Amino acid sequence: MRGNVTVAEAGEQAVLALVRSSAGPPPAWVVLGIGDDAAVVEPARNHLDVLTTDVLVEGVHFDRRLADPESIGFKALAVNLSDLAAMGAAPRAALLSLGLPSELRLSELEGLLRGFADCACRFKVALIGGNVSRSPGALFVDATVTGSVKRRKLLSRAGARPGDALYVTGALGAAAAGLRWLQARGEAIAPGDPGHTSPPGATEAAARFLRPEPRVRFGLLAGRTRAASACVDLSDGLADAVRQLAAASGTGAALDTTAIPVALGAISILGATDAFQAALSGGEDYELLLAVPRKTTRRLEAVARMSGLAVTRIGVLTTGPELVLRDAEADRELPAGFQHFTPATT
Amino acid sequence: MRGNVTVAEAGEQAVLALVRSSAGPPPAWVVLGIGDDAAVVEPARNHLDVLTTDVLVEGVHFDRRLADPESIGFKALAVNLSDLAAMGAAPRAALLSLGLPSELRLSELEGLLRGFADCACRFKVALIGGNVSRSPGALFVDATVTGSVKRRKLLSRAGARPGDALYVTGALGAAAAGLRWLQARGEAIAPGDPGHTSPPGATEAAARFLRPEPRVRFGLLAGRTRAASACVDLSDGLADAVRQLAAASGTGAALDTTAIPVALGAISILGATDAFQAALSGGEDYELLLAVPRKTTRRLEAVARMSGLAVTRIGVLTTGPELVLRDAEADRELPAGFQHFTPATT
Repeated sequence: MRGNVTVAEAGEQAVLALVRSSAGPPPAWVVLGIGDDAAVVEPARNHLDVLTTDVLVEGVHFDRRLADPESIGFKALAVNLSDLAAMGAAPRAALLSLGLPSELRLSELEGLLRGFADCACRFKVALIGGNVSRSPGALFVDATVTGSVKRRKLLSRAGARPGDALYVTGALGAAAAGLRWLQARGEAIAPGDPGHTSPPGATEAAARFLRPEPRVRFGLLAGRTRAASACVDLSDGLADAVRQLAAASGTGAALDTTAIPVALGAISILGATDAFQAALSGGEDYELLLAVPRKTTRRLEAVARMSGLAVTRIGVLTTGPELVLRDAEADRELPAGFQHFTPATT
Repeated sequence: MRGNVTVAEAGEQAVLALVRSSAGPPPAWVVLGIGDDAAVVEPARNHLDVLTTDVLVEGVHFDRRLADPESIGFKALAVNLSDLAAMGAAPRAALLSLGLPSELRLSELEGLLRGFADCACRFKVALIGGNVSRSPGALFVDATVTGSVKRRKLLSRAGARPGDALYVTGALGAAAAGLRWLQARGEAIAPGDPGHTSPPGATEAAARFLRPEPRVRFGLLAGRTRAASACVDLSDGLADAVRQLAAASGTGAALDTTAIPVALGAISILGATDAFQAALSGGEDYELLLAVPRKTTRRLEAVARMSGLAVTRIGVLTTGPELVLRDAEADRELPAGFQHFTPATT
C-alpha cells in the first residue's frame, strides 16, 4: 500500500517528484522553477533574482567530532554559493536559519557564525536576516542565498547540444576521500596541525570536504563571456551532474574514463580504483561541470586563466539517450550519484 | 567560563546578539537587515525585495501525534507570510527546505506538501525551489519567502512615536489555548470532527494553532494606505511584540489591561485568568500589532473594514522607557514573551 511506504523506501527521486508536482504551474515571472541549481525569477523587468537554499544537518552532512564549528558555518554558505556559481550569478544576500540543540556551546555557535561570516566576507555576501530555533536533536544550519544575473548571461542545466564538449573544473574525489580520512582518524584537524604522518594531499582533501571552495568567479565569468551552453555544480558527484545536465538538455553523454581528473589526495587515501569511484560518485567536491560548444572553447580557456582554475575536457554530449563511460576497451553505463534516500531494493 | 556556556543557558537574546554581531556592517542596498520581521533589500533602484525565513521543527513547534501533515505544511508557509504581512509586503515566491526522517511516510509528505500548496494558492505564492535532505531525528520544514513592497509603503517595527495608539487585529490567546486543548485530548482532530463535546470555541482555537491565518491583506492595506507608523506580527505573543515595537521605535508603552481582546476559545479552555496570560504571552496567534498616529485612525478603521478583520485599540506608546499593563488600580510591568532558549536562573 502506497500510504505506508516511507520516504526512505520510496527514494529521493520520488520525494523530489512529489515536491515538484505540488508546486503547480509557475506564474509568468518565474524564469526557472524547481529543478535547476537555483530558482530564477524576474520580479521587475530586466532584473533577474536567483535564489537557492541548502541545509547542513548534523549526522547527515557533518559530524561535530570531525568538523570544527568554523568549517560547518563556512560550508553552510559555500554549498549555496556553489549553486549560484552554477547559474553564473553574482551572490548578494544570505538568510540563515539555525536549529540549535540546547546543549550546543555558545562558543561553538560563535565559531559557526565566524565561519559563515568568513565565507560571506570572501564572496561579498551580506547576511541580512534569518531565524533561530531550538532543535530537539541534530544541529542544522539552513541558508538561503540570493544573487543576480543578466538574462542573457544566465547559465542553466538546459541549453547544451549534442557535440558540445564536457569540461570540469579542478580535480575530483578529494572531498569524499577527505571525509573517509577524517573518519578513520576519528578526530577533527587541530588548527596548525602539520599533518606530518598524513598521506600526500590528505589534509588538503580533508579541507576540501570541510571548507569547499565555491567556484563563484569561474561561474560568473563563464556566464558573462557566454563560454558555456549549460552548467551544473558537483554537489552530488560527477555522475549525477552529467545525468542532470544531459536530462535537462535532452542529450546523452560519453565520458572519457582516462580524462577524468582525480585528486592526488583521493589516490593516496583511497588507492587508484576507489579514488576513481570517489571522483565519479563521491560528491561534495563543489566543482562545476560545463557544456562547451566548439566555437567557445577559447573563451572557456580564457575564463580558466582569469579565475586561476584548471579545467579538463572529460567527454562530449551525444544525441543520447545513453550515458556512458568510455575507454579503449568498452562503453560502460554511468553509475548513479549520491542519493539522500536510496530506493529500497526488494 | 564562557566557552562552556550552552545556548540554553545563555538564552535567546544572547544567541540573537551573536548572530547580529557576526553579520558585520550592511552594504548600502540593505534597507533593513537583521532585527525586523523580515529583511528588506533594494537590488535595483526603486525595487524593494522583502525576504524572511522561518522553520517548524518537530518536537519544538509541532507534535506529529497532534498535528495532521496538511496543517504542518500550511503553517510552515503561513508563519512566513505573517512576517511579510507585518512589513506591508505582497508575497511572491517561496523556497522550501525539508529535513525528512527516513521513517516518514510518503503519504505524510504528500499531505504536508498539499497543506503548503493550499496556503501558497490562497495567498498567491509560487513555490519556486528548495531542498530535500534526510534528518536523523526530527522532521523540519524550513521555508523562505520573498515579497515586494514600495519604499514609501514599507512597514517596519521602527517609526512609531509617543502618543501613537496601539491596535491589535483579531482576538488573542486562541493558539496557545488550542495547543493546550489538543495536548489534553492527546490526538489530532479528525477531518469533519464535529467536536460535540468540546468547550465553546475549542475546535476554532485548535485550528488557530494548527493553521494560523496570516494577515496578509490587512498588512498590505495598512502599508498602502499608510495607516500605521509601525507594525509587528504576534509570533511570540503580544507582550513580546509590544517590547519589540517599542524598542525599535525608542518609546515606552502602556497597555490597557481591560481592552486586550481575549479569544472565546481561550477563556472556555483555560478559564479567564490563564486565558489573559495566553493572550499576553502565549504566542502563535499571528495577528498584527500596529502603532497608529491619531490622524490616521480613520484610515486604520477603513483597512479593518476592507479586510473584514476586527481591530482593537489596546493602549498607547509613551515617551518611555517603561512598558506597563495599566488598569484602574495600578501599573504592572509587562511580562516577557515566549523564548526559545530561556536564560538559566541560577
